[in-house]
This record gives sequence, C-alpha cells and structure tokens, in this order.
Amino acid sequence: MNDLFADRIQDVPRSFIREILKVTMDRSMISFAGGLPNREFFPIRELQEATNRVFDENGTDCLQYSNSEGLFELREFIAKRYKSEQNIEVDPEQILITNGSQQALDLIAKVTINEGDPVIIEEPGYLGAIQALSLYRPRYIPVGVHDEGMDIETLRTGVTSKPKMMYTVPNFQNPSGISYAHENRTRIAEIISGSGCLLIEDDPYGALRFKGEQIDSFYHLIGDQTILLGSFSKVVVPGFRLGWVVAPKRIFEKLIIAKQAADLHTCNFTQYVILNFLKNNAIDQHIQTIVGAYGSQCQAMIDCIEKMFPDDVTCTRPAGGMFLWATLPEYMSAMELFDLAVERKVAFVPGEPFYTRQVRSSAFRLNFSCVDKKVIEEGIGRLAEAISVMSSR
Amino acid sequence: MNDLFADRIQDVPRSFIREILKVTMDRSMISFAGGLPNREFFPIRELQEATNRVFDENGTDCLQYSNSEGLFELREFIAKRYKSEQNIEVDPEQILITNGSQQALDLIAKVTINEGDPVIIEEPGYLGAIQALSLYRPRYIPVGVHDEGMDIETLRTGVTSKPKMMYTVPNFQNPSGISYAHENRTRIAEIISGSGCLLIEDDPYGALRFKGEQIDSFYHLIGDQTILLGSFSKVVVPGFRLGWVVAPKRIFEKLIIAKQAADLHTCNFTQYVILNFLKNNAIDQHIQTIVGAYGSQCQAMIDCIEKMFPDDVTCTRPAGGMFLWATLPEYMSAMELFDLAVERKVAFVPGEPFYTRQVRSSAFRLNFSCVDKKVIEEGIGRLAEAISVMSSR
Repeated sequence: MNDLFADRIQDVPRSFIREILKVTMDRSMISFAGGLPNREFFPIRELQEATNRVFDENGTDCLQYSNSEGLFELREFIAKRYKSEQNIEVDPEQILITNGSQQALDLIAKVTINEGDPVIIEEPGYLGAIQALSLYRPRYIPVGVHDEGMDIETLRTGVTSKPKMMYTVPNFQNPSGISYAHENRTRIAEIISGSGCLLIEDDPYGALRFKGEQIDSFYHLIGDQTILLGSFSKVVVPGFRLGWVVAPKRIFEKLIIAKQAADLHTCNFTQYVILNFLKNNAIDQHIQTIVGAYGSQCQAMIDCIEKMFPDDVTCTRPAGGMFLWATLPEYMSAMELFDLAVERKVAFVPGEPFYTRQVRSSAFRLNFSCVDKKVIEEGIGRLAEAISVMSSR
Repeated sequence: MNDLFADRIQDVPRSFIREILKVTMDRSMISFAGGLPNREFFPIRELQEATNRVFDENGTDCLQYSNSEGLFELREFIAKRYKSEQNIEVDPEQILITNGSQQALDLIAKVTINEGDPVIIEEPGYLGAIQALSLYRPRYIPVGVHDEGMDIETLRTGVTSKPKMMYTVPNFQNPSGISYAHENRTRIAEIISGSGCLLIEDDPYGALRFKGEQIDSFYHLIGDQTILLGSFSKVVVPGFRLGWVVAPKRIFEKLIIAKQAADLHTCNFTQYVILNFLKNNAIDQHIQTIVGAYGSQCQAMIDCIEKMFPDDVTCTRPAGGMFLWATLPEYMSAMELFDLAVERKVAFVPGEPFYTRQVRSSAFRLNFSCVDKKVIEEGIGRLAEAISVMSSR
C-alpha cells in the first residue's frame, strides 16, 4: 500500500529535531538545542486574571465558533502596534490570526506554490519554514546569509529564475542570530522590486533586541510585495499558538479561503485572553525584562566561547533573539561533534537540518534563552572538551 | 500577477456560506442556516473553574510549546471513552489532537491525495470536507445518501475507480440528518474491504442521539482501513478548536509530519483546560441536557413542517445531531426559495454547496440546535409562506 500516500509526503524524512528532543528529555543533559522562550518570564498570574475577566465579560462569545479572520479587536491592537513600534501602516482587515506564524507559512505556501516553483530561502534557514514549504514541493534557491544579511550576488542570480517568493528572518535570524543591515535590505528591495516575487518577512524575535538600533522593515522599502509574519509566542507565551500574517488584499482573500479549509478559525478563547491581557498590562515593560535576561545570557555565552573554545572556532554576535551560530574549522563535522557532546551531556543542533540541500556542515546552533550563566559556563565547558577530543583525533 | 497563485486555489469560489452569514447578522432574521451548537449549554462556570485549576496546578507547562501529538493524558481520556462508549480499542499513541476535526481533514488530504486521485464523497456532503479536500484537487466520486445510508450500487461502481479515500458522516449526517443503518454499513465495509480505500468516519454528532440505538462504527467492521475523526465542539465548546483523528500507525506517522509543518501543535492551554474539565465534571449528564433540548427542538420543527408545509415538501427524520433536510417538489429551486425566505426574514442553506458538481437543488438544510420552539414555529411559518408564494408563481 505504498501508493496510499501523496507524493508530497513520501520523501519527507523524520525530523532530526524530534530525535534531538528525545535526547534532551534526559534531565542531566544541558540543552542548547531547544528553541523555547524562557518559561520563567511567562506572565502566569496576569494571564490568569485576564482569563477570569474574559469568562466574566465575554460570556459565551469566547467559547462559540467565530470568524476565520480572527478577533477584530486583536487585529486592531496588532495594527496599532505596527504603527507605534515600526511606523508601519496596516489595515486590521489585512491581518489574519493564525496558529502561530508557522501556520501562516503553510497557508501562504498553499495559496502560492505549485510543484517546482522557485522559492528563495536563506542558507542556513529556519527549519520550520523548510518543513512547511517542502510539502508543496518548491524548487529551492538557497541564498547564503552572513553578518550583514543576504549574499547579494547569489540573490541577483537567483531572481533571474523568477521565484514566486522569498523567505527571510531579517532580525536575529534563526538559526544564525544575524540581522540584515539597512544597506543590505535596501539592495534586496531594489533587486526584487517589480519582479513578482513575494517577500516574506518573518519576525518572531524583532522585539527581543538587546543592543543596537531597530532597522527598517522591508515593508517600508517594498510594501506591496511584502508579507509580514508575527507571533505572540516569544513575547507573551507560545502555548496559546497565536500568530498572524499581514498580506496585501489580493493575497489576503486567498489566505482566508485556505484558513477556512484548514481549520475554520484559530482558537477563539485564547484570542480573547491575550487581547484582555494586552489591554490591561504593560507589555513593553514585560518585553524589557525578557530582553534584559536574554541579552546577558547571550553575552555570557559569547564570553565563555571566547575563553574556552579554540581560536579557530568562530561565532556570530547577535544583537537580539534567542540563538547564536558557531562554526568549527571546515574539516570538522558538527554532526560528529554532536555525538561527542551528548556523551558529555550537552546538546545543540548541528547545521545540517537548516539546509535545503544535502550538506556536511561544520556549524551548529546554540540557544541561550533558557539557560542561566552558571549552566552556560558548565555547558560551554563540556562542549569545549568535546571539541578538543575531536581535534585530537 | 495572476500567476502569483497556485493552481489549487485559483478555481475555489467565495464560499456561499460566508454570504449567508452576512444575511444572518440581521438580528430580526430567524436563522435555520447556522451550524452552531447552542450556546445556552456551554458549561462556562465549570470551564472557568477548570481553567483556574490549570493555572494553579500546571504552572508553566500549559503555556509552553508542546509536542505535535497533543497532551498524552487527553489522548488517553479519548481512548478510554472510545472503549466505554463504543467498545472500540484504540491506542492513545494513534490519536492526534487537531484544531477541530476540520484540521484532521486537511492533514489527511495533505498526506494522501495527489491531484486527480479519486475520492468518494457523500452526496449531499459536508461542506467543510468539500472545502478541505478540494484544495488537493481530487477527482470526486459522489455517492448519494438516502434514509438508510449510502447508495450501494453507486458505491460499488465507484470503487472500481480505485479511490484513495471515502469520506462519511454515518451518524446524523451533515447536511441531511440521516444515519447509516447497520446493514448499510456492513455492505459498505464488504465492498471497500481490501480495496486500498481509506474510510474516514467523521463523527462530530454521534453523542447527540435523541432516539434509537447506537449503531456500530465502521471501526468494528473494517478497522484497519478506518480513520476516526472526533471533536469536542458539539459536546463541550467549539471555541477551543479541539478535535482529533485516530489513524492506523503507518498513517499516523505521516500525519504527525504534516501537523508539525502545519502549525507545530494544537493550542496547549485549551488542551489542559478541557482535560481538567472532563476529569472533574459529569460529561454524560451534560450531554444528556443537550440531547434533551435538541431532540425536542427537532421534533418541534418536524411537527411544524408537517402542519405548515404543503404535502409535497418532504423532510428527513433525524435520530440525533443538529440538522434536517427538506426537499421541495423537483420543479422548485431552493436557491429561489432562499431569496423569498430572506425577504420574509428567515434563512436556511440551499442544497447547492453540499454538492461537488454543479447541480440545481430543490433541497435545503435546516438547523434546529439554536432555536427554541416559539422561534421554530414562527420561522417555519414564514418559510411556509415563502413556499406558497413560490408555488403560486
């Protein structure tokens, strides 16, 4: 019964990330592998209060079926925040509430990608995007990212293939932690302007900046081709599964059809709760607490790496977000290091799954959001030992 | 920029149901058009208590990212209920929690359907299933349903096309309200057994039986080819968006990949809340309250129809669920009746959208779950008037 399955699912391998998760179930393991926000900062009591107000005030509305677009007041809140935080004007009617921004990716791919359509993707790129898009079988055009953003020459060549879309995480990218500089964004916008290529700007970490100045969104540079993705997962809680997509009207109309077919609408109850929470709490203050912690944890990790890793192991210097990216000398394999590291009870994600093509990667991702300085020191120490064992082989 | 969109979305029309929803926003309109459970029976206080317990007891777990399969204890609860209610043995590891059973349909289609694959669908059939499946561009093989179930001869012919799947709502079908008799199920199982056709048994209304005896699920007859879909929407609340799919292991493995790509996992928080609610409340008693009300509303509607409609208008006699199906004499069009009815401030859903092919339907769906006897009498009266105007033309 092999012909039971659709072609699109036949060649999808079991996720290596899921295998890593199993490894990190071991409580004695120090994990830099996860991608979780730090649960210490979940505003539990404030959410509980908001929930009780919702039960009292929104009676049955929060428990009934609702519209596919999402709660209008929540979409208004998001629109206002784009204006106040980034000076971006969007109409609430262009905002669709999704089950995290992951679902937005699935819906966008569903309404735009035919099998074999060219799609530009960052290399290394966000694993969840690769998973979502791959099920629609695009032809990937990977474009490398470096400390300043995308590789412009590769992009210029890539655009000649007439890509349908281009997926980017310009702020504190997952997995690398790098951000696109203003100059880089400007050049990207010039290249794709008028090309018919949609630019997806996924921005789950944008609010988590712990140094430097905010850089203009692609929306300012090439608004009519830009789709914005956002999420409450990193700044409030991920368990509610609330994200959104902002799309030009002609695309929004198709996304609504796909959303309705996918699950009718996003959980109505948590939309009411988060709206009530946002209206009654100082969200910026809350974000500053998270940013303060992540910033000092990131610095602690960089300090330990500089002190303990050999000089020929490099790492990025993120200005925000949750990840940094370390690179071993080219002759070393991050996958081999992974095995040595797990023996020493420390885990990370090797570079391979962040590529859309088969590669042997000497780089790996380190998460710093869920570990305090003491754990960072111990974990980077164990990793340093694993690296030393590998180089002596 | 017409080639912006994927082929799969190009030919999907705007949903007629969404247009109807606009009509029913008018407060003076009596609506038999909806498909909503009655909000009077939402266990609001009990859910509020459960939510407060969850915040107190499950601390941060309910707010963090979680696994794609869903909360294990909730899946265990569902498995136990299959055993106690239907004597069905399923392993909790075969159960995937989804955003309502609508998402289960999308995921199943995603992992099984290639463009052009034959799919058997009930005629008339559930609109949400038609929407979800259509985006994967199957070739539909419609099989008519009547008071006893599927038309066996059409099915027998249909199966010769080697369908990938067959979608059924054997209990209190949406839109018709009919149920498949035991004899009909047995013959269906004989026909598709060993054919490689998956049988989807969607059962959102099964617990809402107000007369007659429970009939064995297809799972008892042809378990290895059956996929079960279930939902908390009709027996607890729909706003939580919680449903599930029970699938054979080989299919489950693919569904998990698709689920992860679609939205990582279903809202974790509402899973905790509903589990806590179910563990601390007598769900059967709650269901009996709903069943009592729906049963008498259904009877009231049938009584009014018999009294007020002309003799050549027939209707089904549901033993449960939320809908019944009325049929005008063949020369009359339900779509024309719709316009006359809306002028008289009463709405229903004409038959057309429940078909996968272009038809002119003389049948229409009436919902009885959200209207009390007084409203039913008034609304059926207005409808009778509209019918009378139409027949005099």
